[in-house]
Amino acid sequence: MIYDVIVIGLGPGGYGASIYAHRSGLKVLVLEGKMPGGLMNYTNIVNNYPGFINITGPELSMKMFEHFSSFEIDYKNEDVIEIENGKVKKVITNNSIYESKNIIIATGRSRRSLGLPKEDELRGNGISYCAMCDGHFYKNKDVLVVGAGDSSLEEALYLANIAKKVTMIVRGSKLSGKQDLVETIEKKENINVKFGCNIVELDSNNGVFSGVKLDNSEELLASGLFVYIGFEPIMPFKCNVDIKRDNGYIITDNNFETDVEGIYAVGDIIKKDMYQIVSAISEGATAATHIARKLTKKN
Amino acid sequence: MIYDVIVIGLGPGGYGASIYAHRSGLKVLVLEGKMPGGLMNYTNIVNNYPGFINITGPELSMKMFEHFSSFEIDYKNEDVIEIENGKVKKVITNNSIYESKNIIIATGRSRRSLGLPKEDELRGNGISYCAMCDGHFYKNKDVLVVGAGDSSLEEALYLANIAKKVTMIVRGSKLSGKQDLVETIEKKENINVKFGCNIVELDSNNGVFSGVKLDNSEELLASGLFVYIGFEPIMPFKCNVDIKRDNGYIITDNNFETDVEGIYAVGDIIKKDMYQIVSAISEGATAATHIARKLTKKN
Repeated sequence: MIYDVIVIGLGPGGYGASIYAHRSGLKVLVLEGKMPGGLMNYTNIVNNYPGFINITGPELSMKMFEHFSSFEIDYKNEDVIEIENGKVKKVITNNSIYESKNIIIATGRSRRSLGLPKEDELRGNGISYCAMCDGHFYKNKDVLVVGAGDSSLEEALYLANIAKKVTMIVRGSKLSGKQDLVETIEKKENINVKFGCNIVELDSNNGVFSGVKLDNSEELLASGLFVYIGFEPIMPFKCNVDIKRDNGYIITDNNFETDVEGIYAVGDIIKKDMYQIVSAISEGATAATHIARKLTKKN
Repeated sequence: MIYDVIVIGLGPGGYGASIYAHRSGLKVLVLEGKMPGGLMNYTNIVNNYPGFINITGPELSMKMFEHFSSFEIDYKNEDVIEIENGKVKKVITNNSIYESKNIIIATGRSRRSLGLPKEDELRGNGISYCAMCDGHFYKNKDVLVVGAGDSSLEEALYLANIAKKVTMIVRGSKLSGKQDLVETIEKKENINVKFGCNIVELDSNNGVFSGVKLDNSEELLASGLFVYIGFEPIMPFKCNVDIKRDNGYIITDNNFETDVEGIYAVGDIIKKDMYQIVSAISEGATAATHIARKLTKKN
């Protein structure tokens, strides 16, 4: 059997892609080797997916999985090891080989962590990796931001509008992001940057983050710590063609098709400006609808 | 007081825009003269907004309004009569005048109806205006499609993959849509086109649509009737500058900004390929985030 589309990954992008593809009458297979939900599973509270007030990431993730499961969509809990482009595309998992006319890659990305003790248990209890998701909870409080690149600068600026004070912790001697962002950070009154230091210890109080110790022996108290030492796009499979990428992120057109015909990518694995649940779903829906229209015209 | 952004219209696009703008720390005012929710209020069942299984349009609409109301966002039930572009933009309603640095237009569109008796009561009971929303419910059933333009052709093709038989009812002597679409329709075995006829009567059985009578006296039985005689973009206010539009739909860039700086448009009012709840929200979120980043850099 040749599928119309195989969706690799079942986070928000994969849900949008598979539900829209299925409802368009396409034969769909979804492959996800881990727990469905992607980064939603590691988000404390989601309050920007309209319709759900202050839902936890894992709860929203379960609701989407239940929704997905209400459709009769083929779904295998298998890891993709290799994809082989061709007139018919092959997707090789740890268990089997599947064939499809199209592929939608929705494997997302993971957060680079500090690698410090207690980091995992404080995730969602004062340690966050997403200002747009969690910044709201730190209104008029003091927060720390770790990192010096574009995304940490953007997120520090974002937080500065909400938090009382933002302290950036930067390993090197300067901010490495875009010049206009750097200049804006320098002018911003409630952003303070500490250069040449690293966090060596995470402090907590009753399981809630309370501050950090730096390698210069300084101690900083704060209600929140935002870690922006980067994300890692997740693309753990081989491919017999080069899909155009930038710094690991897949480049797509407006229909979310890559430079390889019939291979699409949606959600956090692609290069874009805004990494949000609702956008990933919309991108998945757009790619699926594009495939449905394409196949309809061919038949 | 000068707002950072005024959002005009509170359907999915307005929800995405206002919630994201508010959470970014912007001063937001939302103006909606009618019932919030837009076209969602007239959709039978929504099953493509991940997380809600088979929810009615009005129910989803209420959930989004409750979510919106949980934030302290300024909201006025007023009709916008005029917008005046300038360094500071003015929005004039039936009640007052408001000032803002940015405007997001999210006024949506309305469906053109047939104007026949019983049409309103059969809406959602066999009469639909959105194949991608409701097509799924007509699997292996016979459906009718009224209209001859691009969108009716695309939707008939979409339905042909789901329904048993699609009969198109066309007033003129030919299909007026794009040539490739017309050719595909002609080749499609389960699509039949009836030219030179109009629907003069809607038939029903216990409040459920059952078929139509044509002006050539023919009677057609069917489970569903999809009306594609067009949508009307809703832009009921005057503006002292021309915003670039195509056939009434506003043209935007990738950030959903129009050709007038600081005036954005999202959702069904804009020219695009896919008119869906999740996309409108994502567009609103994108526009709001763009404004937040822009203002942050200026401050």
